[in-house]
Amino acid sequence: MGRWPGGTQERLQEAAIELFTERGYERTTVAEIATRAGLTERTFYNHFADKREVLFPGQDSFIAKVREAVGAAPAEQSPLDAVNAAFIAGSDWFDQRREAAQRRRHILDAHTDLREREWAKLAALGEAITAALRTRGIPDPAATLTAAVSVTAYQLAAARWLADPQYGTLGHHLHTSFEDLHRTARSW
Amino acid sequence: MGRWPGGTQERLQEAAIELFTERGYERTTVAEIATRAGLTERTFYNHFADKREVLFPGQDSFIAKVREAVGAAPAEQSPLDAVNAAFIAGSDWFDQRREAAQRRRHILDAHTDLREREWAKLAALGEAITAALRTRGIPDPAATLTAAVSVTAYQLAAARWLADPQYGTLGHHLHTSFEDLHRTARSW
Repeated sequence: MGRWPGGTQERLQEAAIELFTERGYERTTVAEIATRAGLTERTFYNHFADKREVLFPGQDSFIAKVREAVGAAPAEQSPLDAVNAAFIAGSDWFDQRREAAQRRRHILDAHTDLREREWAKLAALGEAITAALRTRGIPDPAATLTAAVSVTAYQLAAARWLADPQYGTLGHHLHTSFEDLHRTARSW
Repeated sequence: MGRWPGGTQERLQEAAIELFTERGYERTTVAEIATRAGLTERTFYNHFADKREVLFPGQDSFIAKVREAVGAAPAEQSPLDAVNAAFIAGSDWFDQRREAAQRRRHILDAHTDLREREWAKLAALGEAITAALRTRGIPDPAATLTAAVSVTAYQLAAARWLADPQYGTLGHHLHTSFEDLHRTARSW
């Protein structure tokens, strides 16, 4: 088993996070990332449209998984609980990469253009969840509102997960954040 | 009374929307926007950091107003209703500019970089509302969750307002969207 069991995209992301942390995001080139990963610049561009995208690998497959899980959730599950269960089902992948996720978070927080790209990705996640909820028969605007608030609860859970000195799993923090959301909604 | 009672920023925005609609966002320069508004390029840059920012004038003062109104809302008002009332209080300004807002929306929707900037502005609005709710004694995470869902309901209201063939006011659509949100939250 190699050093990067996650495949080429993950290998490029690990190299990028290393270099961004060592010498800064601006001062790192795509060619340097490819070299560090033992790959060519051409391979980089086969997988990512630009330098920013390397920090968002697997987002499309995560979105596809969440969408599928929401669509397949038991009919008796409430819309919000169905989305939470879908997030939890996909959370193991992140738990195995917590340290890289922390370094990635620091890089994103320091760069406006990266945060803008992140918001675009979160918007895409929200749209995928909206579509999945519609296939469960949830009409608009309930589907849109539920999807958006789910993404917010997800962000809250991710922030707590990264900051947790006790190393609670992302699944644990998702559970807590969605409980907080249920409680908060009763105060509205 | 002049053609642009809203001041220099608004004058530049109107000129920009005209030019972006006529010849496209990419093909319009800052110099051309300034000329169309009867101003200099230097004046443009005194008001906006770049070409994208001209589509987001008055956002800072809108954010400041919403923040102030949330902080000053009656204590017996629920957090969500306080935010909605703050949005409604600031909605007249938009009703007077509906047609420009529609053209602006078309331009934003067609350009990823503009949508990314918009998400950044909405995130800033959410952060300002979070801070205002905290001053009302709403703890976290309730403040963060309530602020984020308010921004979503606001976006829904704005989309409905722009698409409404009956020309309902933004205030009317805010009222409806927040009612939808209350109803949706009961299904969670």
